[in-house]
Amino acid sequence: MTFLLDERLAADTVEVCQLELSYLGVLKDARYPWLVLVPRQTGLVEVTDLDEAGRALLWREVEQCCEVLQGPYPDAKINIGALGNIVRQLHVHVIARHEGDAAWPGPVWGVGEAVAYEDAALADLLGQLRGNF
Amino acid sequence: MTFLLDERLAADTVEVCQLELSYLGVLKDARYPWLVLVPRQTGLVEVTDLDEAGRALLWREVEQCCEVLQGPYPDAKINIGALGNIVRQLHVHVIARHEGDAAWPGPVWGVGEAVAYEDAALADLLGQLRGNF
Repeated sequence: MTFLLDERLAADTVEVCQLELSYLGVLKDARYPWLVLVPRQTGLVEVTDLDEAGRALLWREVEQCCEVLQGPYPDAKINIGALGNIVRQLHVHVIARHEGDAAWPGPVWGVGEAVAYEDAALADLLGQLRGNF
Repeated sequence: MTFLLDERLAADTVEVCQLELSYLGVLKDARYPWLVLVPRQTGLVEVTDLDEAGRALLWREVEQCCEVLQGPYPDAKINIGALGNIVRQLHVHVIARHEGDAAWPGPVWGVGEAVAYEDAALADLLGQLRGNF
């Protein structure tokens, strides 16, 4: 069966690139530098639905997201989350948080409304990200 | 330097056991089956502060927490989170979520007040958990 990105994840993110295991998107919310990883296998809900090699690869991709965000945001507190209470397709969030950001110090999920990126800012971010993966 | 569990994590959890890398605690909140892993190394803030072997071990311990919770809670949606916006010492939450629980479908952090366990319920949970790690 062909992998299909969940409709909501597709609508809420812009593709950065395809990593070895996962679709990598940036969330369309200029309030936070926010990456989302979605392993390209059908039927995944929990991390434990991946086999041992898949789990290890997913976590390495999560760590890579952390490191890529730590470059331009050395003062960020990285937040990692795999929740899936609303969108069941397995996906992992990696977000660069800053003191005073829109949800600080709480979690970002479900807080307020996403703020659209300016086209130029999104293009800059995508360029920067694509150069680092 | 000897590892010291952060005061707030110590106050908010009851020790289940010590895993190879991490202190494992259960959060004192009867609203959710909620585990917290704290790698026993000093000075950790981000997952990326661990070396490669430590990262891999931490994730395996996270996966083990998922699997242990999936036993008694087969219908749960597991939530995994490493935030650290308030408590900086690196720690990872693994929570068994259920439709209609106190924060559903939002994240658990910062929602309402913790509900104390009855002594017997906590003893049962600890016994069950200790038998599975």
